[in-house]
Amino acid sequence: MATTEAPAVSIDLETHPTRYKHIQLEVDGPIAWIRLAIQEEGGLRPGYVLKLNSYDLGVDIELNDAVNRLRWEHPEVSAVVITSALDGVFSSGANIFMLGSSSHAFKVNFCKYTNETRVGIEDSTENSGQTYIAALNGIASGGGYELPLACKEMYLIDDRRSAVALPEVPYLGVLPGTGGLTRVVDKRMVRRDRADVFCTLAEGIKGKRAVEWGLVDGVFPTSRFDEEIEKRAKEVAGQGHTDRQGIELDALAPEVGEDAIRYRHVSLEFGPTPRTARLCVKLPDSIPALPASARDAGADYFPLRAFREIDDAILRLRFNHPEVGLVLFETRGDLQQVVAVDADLWARREDWFAAAVTHHMKRVLKRIDVTAKTFFAIIDQGSCFAGSFLELALAADRSFMLEEDGVTVAITDLNGGSLPMGNGLTRLGTRFLGSPEHACHVAGKRGEIDAGAADELGLVTVLADEIDWEDELRLAIEERASLSPDSLTGLEANLRFAGPETLETKIFGRLTAWQNWIFQRPNAVGEKGALTLYGRPESPEFDWNRT
Amino acid sequence: MATTEAPAVSIDLETHPTRYKHIQLEVDGPIAWIRLAIQEEGGLRPGYVLKLNSYDLGVDIELNDAVNRLRWEHPEVSAVVITSALDGVFSSGANIFMLGSSSHAFKVNFCKYTNETRVGIEDSTENSGQTYIAALNGIASGGGYELPLACKEMYLIDDRRSAVALPEVPYLGVLPGTGGLTRVVDKRMVRRDRADVFCTLAEGIKGKRAVEWGLVDGVFPTSRFDEEIEKRAKEVAGQGHTDRQGIELDALAPEVGEDAIRYRHVSLEFGPTPRTARLCVKLPDSIPALPASARDAGADYFPLRAFREIDDAILRLRFNHPEVGLVLFETRGDLQQVVAVDADLWARREDWFAAAVTHHMKRVLKRIDVTAKTFFAIIDQGSCFAGSFLELALAADRSFMLEEDGVTVAITDLNGGSLPMGNGLTRLGTRFLGSPEHACHVAGKRGEIDAGAADELGLVTVLADEIDWEDELRLAIEERASLSPDSLTGLEANLRFAGPETLETKIFGRLTAWQNWIFQRPNAVGEKGALTLYGRPESPEFDWNRT
Repeated sequence: MATTEAPAVSIDLETHPTRYKHIQLEVDGPIAWIRLAIQEEGGLRPGYVLKLNSYDLGVDIELNDAVNRLRWEHPEVSAVVITSALDGVFSSGANIFMLGSSSHAFKVNFCKYTNETRVGIEDSTENSGQTYIAALNGIASGGGYELPLACKEMYLIDDRRSAVALPEVPYLGVLPGTGGLTRVVDKRMVRRDRADVFCTLAEGIKGKRAVEWGLVDGVFPTSRFDEEIEKRAKEVAGQGHTDRQGIELDALAPEVGEDAIRYRHVSLEFGPTPRTARLCVKLPDSIPALPASARDAGADYFPLRAFREIDDAILRLRFNHPEVGLVLFETRGDLQQVVAVDADLWARREDWFAAAVTHHMKRVLKRIDVTAKTFFAIIDQGSCFAGSFLELALAADRSFMLEEDGVTVAITDLNGGSLPMGNGLTRLGTRFLGSPEHACHVAGKRGEIDAGAADELGLVTVLADEIDWEDELRLAIEERASLSPDSLTGLEANLRFAGPETLETKIFGRLTAWQNWIFQRPNAVGEKGALTLYGRPESPEFDWNRT
Repeated sequence: MATTEAPAVSIDLETHPTRYKHIQLEVDGPIAWIRLAIQEEGGLRPGYVLKLNSYDLGVDIELNDAVNRLRWEHPEVSAVVITSALDGVFSSGANIFMLGSSSHAFKVNFCKYTNETRVGIEDSTENSGQTYIAALNGIASGGGYELPLACKEMYLIDDRRSAVALPEVPYLGVLPGTGGLTRVVDKRMVRRDRADVFCTLAEGIKGKRAVEWGLVDGVFPTSRFDEEIEKRAKEVAGQGHTDRQGIELDALAPEVGEDAIRYRHVSLEFGPTPRTARLCVKLPDSIPALPASARDAGADYFPLRAFREIDDAILRLRFNHPEVGLVLFETRGDLQQVVAVDADLWARREDWFAAAVTHHMKRVLKRIDVTAKTFFAIIDQGSCFAGSFLELALAADRSFMLEEDGVTVAITDLNGGSLPMGNGLTRLGTRFLGSPEHACHVAGKRGEIDAGAADELGLVTVLADEIDWEDELRLAIEERASLSPDSLTGLEANLRFAGPETLETKIFGRLTAWQNWIFQRPNAVGEKGALTLYGRPESPEFDWNRT
């Protein structure tokens, strides 16, 4: 297995249950079943075989799609069981041959995406009333154990051979980096010395000891396993959310060209400055208010569609446009329309559909926060950075505002806590970490805020009048596009998350950074590295010096 | 400047003011002055010139020594001013040519040590009543600004040219990694977009804007600078701690041999398993109680001397023995003696000397927590893991206890909060994160605890009786010594710090991990990397792909 770059194919992040190759999604009243039945020959690219329910990005795209569709298309579901359709194995984790033959950048982006999907599972459990249960009917190893770690509960079959394991350190010389280490000690609160033993034990831990150490929530013998899982799923599910009726998510199906990707409301244009893209959201002429039955707004509901498009654009930027280092956020439309949309979502926040739209916005904004690209927000004539869209500017590394009549921003109720960052604070709270009173004061402002006032309130980085505007922007863009991309990635990862840390920021900040480091070390990816040599008869050769 | 490995010279971490080359330490009543007067030709090894008050490890060893001696030898001091003896420049930070010509491992260890010194300055301010003030009488750039960031207050001269700056990203393609990024947004709580601007502005920020952005606490014109600093130092200092009388710290002067390093109470032996060392603390036959005037116990006071020796041994392990991946902690002596020492320290905790000893223990234990080596504690016949020494076992990644009569451990008052980890919790609190009640219960246990009870309480990882003991240990040691050192470093960095995050854990966890990643990237250290080419006429060439 040669360590070659993954071929530069454009990755499509959209899928649909009718096209799933690897997972079976079944909805049975209030309970949904996700069964992993990963097709060995169904990898996203040639060069590896997805044996033993091991996964690649293609599998995770399906998993993300299923988790997402359950929220929108089957909101009545209240319990989701993830299990395996294979005999004796739940999942053996990320495919090692895929990892071994991928570029450093792809590995990093792949891990980030899978981490986001796992966090999405936790978000569904916490915020959409869909509790995830992992039914480990066979060995759950590596990423195959990290997936259940993202579920609320997990149960392991007691067949005297099935174990849970994190064998990355002994087998591959890398970390259990899809949240594994963090979730073991911070979520399941396994004692650190036991976690140390567990993470160096390639064969893992099974039976009673797995329960005693807190690695699983229970074990059931083979004879009763299916029955007990069903029983537990029914207990958790109850009647389901019988008051909710789903909507169908249609495909975004963007028009993908050389110079631009165009969606219904969003466009992503590349250039003219090299390595720079412009992500523009354009409001339609009018946005209907939510109907009496909110879900009747359907997938066409503007904020839902627009944020789905932003999400897809961000993922395409990550996977298909690694050379782009700077993204300019632009908005076009009537700012008061955004204010009205936000007011509507806030007023109807008890309605599952309105809440789901807001949670979706939140997750998309979090995806931006952990994206390794610089974001600049451009607030100029015709822009509509209000409320939920103002969060794009607050998520940006810098914001530029034209000092001119009619150029304004606005705060809405959604800036006050509905769209928190991974650190648990609002973007205003993080921005004004030193003065929570000021954060509150700003969150309470209503009405249009002009450039002078926005500057005074600390909402924008740079003000410029018409005379300086073009130069100011051009210089900032050119300067940014000239800096070392790696140091900018590190800079942004550290400056964006002031304040408290959570499971999420630990996973995307600390665990990920260490994994990225290890993913470059010769001991893992060198010619004689453990990851490179996995599955081959030779043993890895290590540089023993500790760093 | 070729990127070659630093020559493998053994580094001595001890120094004394009479031997300082680079800093001037002056004590004037309650105020101490540390003046940076770094000798250009005084580098720790040949190959670079310490221009413009730039520093290398040798400088930081002196700084650490000064900070430490102020606590012990001049406890009457209540304000410490750090300033420059050079004209127009405070400090230009870590020497780039030194960094550019150092190995990856040395860079990482150098940054860790400087970070620990900065945290030590904050600890003196917070816990020893010695408040640090930075008087920036010239440009403070890179690490030269990170040092003042560790001070409680900093003032910048307003001479129209002196600025504070973090130019690592634009100049070197690496991060301000000595706590810089974290302290800017988390300690000084500078707005993240302003921090982003600041960290990409090579020339830095001066004057009023530096104050407005929160980068410094004040600016004074040249004509009044010295006078204003003196005035502020006097305000902060007050009368000083007139009730305290210092002690002299004598040299540890260990006997350094091929196979072992021997101190008065501590020995560090290498082998017999390759890449393994044994750090053993041996109690003297008797330990006198603290005298009526506690400081009369002096530098010979057992816990002070023993923990100073442990500290030195850990630093030598890091810098001089990178090949050692596993350290076994052993203790020998009468456990009740440790119980008595801890009781004494606890009873006298209002006394500055007793408090200083305890804070010193705390800092040494924290040094262990962030050391990139595995630690196993060996609790066997004749060991005395009680209280402050039990913390060594709690800091270890695993502990092994012999199940035999007379082999016991003990909890003392010092385990209850006097020796917190960097995350702000006790080691018991971190260990039992899922059950704070249990952590409290254990912290309250008194009397000797035998193996069975220790296991029951969750204090040890592995119990073994006499028959299995040797095999159990041998297997664990051999297994550990066979694993990829990089993955173990990442594993330990993630498992040791469950629970809350603080400035400190963010610096040693997140910021450091990102810097380590960048320190390996070709964009920084490759042939055409920014760090490699610094000071040369060529411009760096970047791989523009964002990762």
